[in-house]
Amino acid sequence: MLYWKAAGDMDPAIYATRIDRVRAAIGRKRIDALLVTHLPNVLYLSGFSGDSGYLLVEPQRATLFTDGRFTVQAGEEAPGAKLVLQRGSLPATVGKHLARTKGIVGYSPSQLSLLTWHALRQAAGATLRWRAAEGIVEALRVVKSPQEIAEIRQAGKVVCEVAREVIGLVRPGVRELDLAAEIGYRLRRKGATGESFAAIVAAGPRSALPHARPTARRIGKNELVVLDLGAILRRYCSDLTRTVYVGSVPARVRRWYRAVKEAQGAALDALKPGVLAGDVDRAARRVLERYKLGRYFVHSTGHGIGLEIHEAPRLGRGQGTPLEAGTVVTIEPGVYIEGVGGIRIEDDAWVTPNGSELLTTLGRDLLEL
Amino acid sequence: MLYWKAAGDMDPAIYATRIDRVRAAIGRKRIDALLVTHLPNVLYLSGFSGDSGYLLVEPQRATLFTDGRFTVQAGEEAPGAKLVLQRGSLPATVGKHLARTKGIVGYSPSQLSLLTWHALRQAAGATLRWRAAEGIVEALRVVKSPQEIAEIRQAGKVVCEVAREVIGLVRPGVRELDLAAEIGYRLRRKGATGESFAAIVAAGPRSALPHARPTARRIGKNELVVLDLGAILRRYCSDLTRTVYVGSVPARVRRWYRAVKEAQGAALDALKPGVLAGDVDRAARRVLERYKLGRYFVHSTGHGIGLEIHEAPRLGRGQGTPLEAGTVVTIEPGVYIEGVGGIRIEDDAWVTPNGSELLTTLGRDLLEL
Repeated sequence: MLYWKAAGDMDPAIYATRIDRVRAAIGRKRIDALLVTHLPNVLYLSGFSGDSGYLLVEPQRATLFTDGRFTVQAGEEAPGAKLVLQRGSLPATVGKHLARTKGIVGYSPSQLSLLTWHALRQAAGATLRWRAAEGIVEALRVVKSPQEIAEIRQAGKVVCEVAREVIGLVRPGVRELDLAAEIGYRLRRKGATGESFAAIVAAGPRSALPHARPTARRIGKNELVVLDLGAILRRYCSDLTRTVYVGSVPARVRRWYRAVKEAQGAALDALKPGVLAGDVDRAARRVLERYKLGRYFVHSTGHGIGLEIHEAPRLGRGQGTPLEAGTVVTIEPGVYIEGVGGIRIEDDAWVTPNGSELLTTLGRDLLEL
Repeated sequence: MLYWKAAGDMDPAIYATRIDRVRAAIGRKRIDALLVTHLPNVLYLSGFSGDSGYLLVEPQRATLFTDGRFTVQAGEEAPGAKLVLQRGSLPATVGKHLARTKGIVGYSPSQLSLLTWHALRQAAGATLRWRAAEGIVEALRVVKSPQEIAEIRQAGKVVCEVAREVIGLVRPGVRELDLAAEIGYRLRRKGATGESFAAIVAAGPRSALPHARPTARRIGKNELVVLDLGAILRRYCSDLTRTVYVGSVPARVRRWYRAVKEAQGAALDALKPGVLAGDVDRAARRVLERYKLGRYFVHSTGHGIGLEIHEAPRLGRGQGTPLEAGTVVTIEPGVYIEGVGGIRIEDDAWVTPNGSELLTTLGRDLLEL
């Protein structure tokens, strides 16, 4: 029985292609094998979605190491990888396996705890040649296939539907927590396996906190309300923010909103193949500076999105990475005025061969509720 | 404004006491300062619940390092700690600060990535004396205060209410995913800030998978259904599993259920101050062995629960840790018969001065739905 098979699973052939791309990438760095310890990378390269496992990519094979809880799942999800069940700890098992390796083994220092690293090295023995190789798989994941873009588009569709519904529930007296509960519930009812992050519902002065968590605070009259939500649908994430106003919008809030919306438009206009990530950020920032709101924009303009809610590239100040067609990013400028409120508008877009296209299409006009 | 204050927040004096206990614990290991990098430990020792931060416990002060997003929150939540905002990366900031330290600095190798470790050491300079000190704060967290036990009891009450309600929705044709959505929604409506883990709803042969994730599969007639759910209420976790049967229970399933229930009772009877963690596990395992079901019990009998859903101690085979009064654990034996189904019954209990008491009190009789 295919217990884990999700409708959106990739054609198994895709994994062989991705692993070949890993081999080419490490070959250019004169590394013979790559130990993949970050689960989203293991999923990307093998299809295995269990809660514990490492993938070892060698020239002639890929080996998935996991434990007995995941035997059936590994066989079904990752038929292309040789399965090795751990005896003792995962690092000790993998280290022992590596002891026979002659070539140079790459690893990602940000994706290994110091404890795991010691255990791996001890089991592998002193003669094994290790080489730090950060971001190999992450770099491959930046450019999405058409199927991946279709998955994110679908996750974007669901999140837009839910945002529209939940905005309809915003009114004075409703608690932030209750709206967050509605978001999670409605996403799952529409087929999401989960939220790509704990939804933010932040009203009044709390909307000025970019990382607010929903509280039992009740929404009042004449308040801004920021709703930031995301769906995981068939493994891929979406991310959307809308800001609404409860009451009749004062002139200064209308002006702030217009500035953020224009900033988002400018960033989307800048988004195309070859543009530097930092230049997309600058496009948004310049608009806000023109409105004298630059100092209230306290974060980056966006980030990559895919199997993880935050992945490469980062659209931040001075980022020199040129963007390639197939890259999927959020575009989410905002202004945050302490003690008063905040406004953020966020959509997901992909870099097309000629420009960019939105993957979330909910209207962005300021709503007075 | 107290944006983050949760009703269940601790009296600020508690943090000073906890930090003094850290100082005593590291003093016994001749360590002068402890760098705390695991966020639940930072929360436990300072009250700070932000998404990024380290706490440095020194003899005369505790310093919280975080970034500008959390300035207001840190001031409100952790008034007892000196606040230092990072410039550049968190490890570089902390490392630079540590460069002036003369004593030995303890750290937890399982709670630092290799990359972070390199950055810390580089910024701190070659003369700083580091010493690995695993599990210092975790050991203090094992024994809960009466207030902490009250919080977990409250989280247990909410999870029991929701389990009762959602069991009422189990019927043929309902999808596992829909029941999982109901769980999340109802927990939040009752004041939970979230689920302590993604709820498991696994029916039919999928119930034989201890780590099943809910799917779009519809529940059929004559199936076991395992529901495993947890609430985070005012920062503390609860964890509960019930197994029900859709249809008229066959004799062998009734026997399995009786065995698991008896095993859980035996473990609860064994739970008291001074008992070894492994002996609680053995009490459950022996009952299942008596029923010739020992080989179908493929995991440990339980785990500690508190600020994290899995914490010390582990109630597993041969664990030699004696349990102290105030320890809160899950007791969750199960049997899993591949291709057929599984049964697990899980409750939370605390070790009282004389024995143990359940913190989850939902009935455990086998329900035929």
